[in-house]
Amino acid sequence: MRIGIIGGTGEIGEGMAMRLSRIMDVCVGSRDVAKAQETCDVCLFSAKENKFECSVKGGSNQNVVDESDLIILAVPFKHVRSTVEGLTGWEDKIVISPVNPMERKESFVYTPPAEGSAALYLKSILPASTRICTAFNNIAGNKWRDIHSDLTYSVPVCGDDAQAKQIVMDLVDRISLLKAYDAGPLSGSHIVESITPLLLNVARYNRMKDVGIRFV
Amino acid sequence: MRIGIIGGTGEIGEGMAMRLSRIMDVCVGSRDVAKAQETCDVCLFSAKENKFECSVKGGSNQNVVDESDLIILAVPFKHVRSTVEGLTGWEDKIVISPVNPMERKESFVYTPPAEGSAALYLKSILPASTRICTAFNNIAGNKWRDIHSDLTYSVPVCGDDAQAKQIVMDLVDRISLLKAYDAGPLSGSHIVESITPLLLNVARYNRMKDVGIRFV
Repeated sequence: MRIGIIGGTGEIGEGMAMRLSRIMDVCVGSRDVAKAQETCDVCLFSAKENKFECSVKGGSNQNVVDESDLIILAVPFKHVRSTVEGLTGWEDKIVISPVNPMERKESFVYTPPAEGSAALYLKSILPASTRICTAFNNIAGNKWRDIHSDLTYSVPVCGDDAQAKQIVMDLVDRISLLKAYDAGPLSGSHIVESITPLLLNVARYNRMKDVGIRFV
Repeated sequence: MRIGIIGGTGEIGEGMAMRLSRIMDVCVGSRDVAKAQETCDVCLFSAKENKFECSVKGGSNQNVVDESDLIILAVPFKHVRSTVEGLTGWEDKIVISPVNPMERKESFVYTPPAEGSAALYLKSILPASTRICTAFNNIAGNKWRDIHSDLTYSVPVCGDDAQAKQIVMDLVDRISLLKAYDAGPLSGSHIVESITPLLLNVARYNRMKDVGIRFV
């Protein structure tokens, strides 16, 4: 299983790369290959300092699609369309969407596209054979990057392809103390995505930082 | 502070009555006053068995509105309109909406009205001076009724009236181990409401029971 991260040089993407490259082979993609290589250097340096193995390489976003079986699309919603449509070879790939369309107004507001969610929008622009799952939506970038802290969150996973969903859930369960939960079909992704602006509001109005959720 | 529960004879309403009547004066309302009295008898019997004080009385739903400062509207969404429009005297009251519009299809689906949420629908049919807060949306009826178990959940509270929201949050924090969180304006209620069908899906697809949430 080869894992790729598109947008692997953003805050969340880099944190994911740091954690994932210690447990599997990871390809970090960026529009700017030099920046992807910088993220790899950060991963390698951090792993060496902490005496972990680390398997990571950098490339273009197209390299990520070409070389990965499972692709995490770690880009802001506003860049999803241009990123996806600028790349080829999505057929049969598993794509994880941690994307949350939202805006900061008086409070943080969930702003899904007409399709109902980022996940369903992705479905509308990717080939029918692409197996899309929603996962990792509710974990703050700071937490991904703080590799000395355990991630103790619940991760709801939505998707319509049972095999792909199981692969994604198995991946989730290998990362720190994350626990994956089957959250039903892809059409329910809007709920998972909208939890992120809720968590940002909870953090803001209760003077907290990097709030996540756990199912109990 | 006098607390009233409309729909106090339903599963969630009865569980709320059992727990709340041990810490404050509670008026339990029902369309059928005899049923409201039955719920009171259950509360009194359970409290006596477990050696708790208990202050509860039954009445009509109109009695609840007339005699309470804070009213919990524990009715299914499909009965909200007829219940609210059949009663008078809502002016200046604090109303808590634990209402979650949803349907069970292939999976549980959030089905808000055109206003965007049950809370905003309530706002559209109640007098402008009624102070509506969203709270208690994500706690299973079984858990309310199982008075021997602690409620260890996080309770997001949405509302536009700061004073009313503080009163509701203080109420939440007095119940078992519940912890209230200010979740922003009433317009964000759709997220809180939609978490309930998500939790029902998580329970269903992962063979769990009565799943709730905690912010961590």
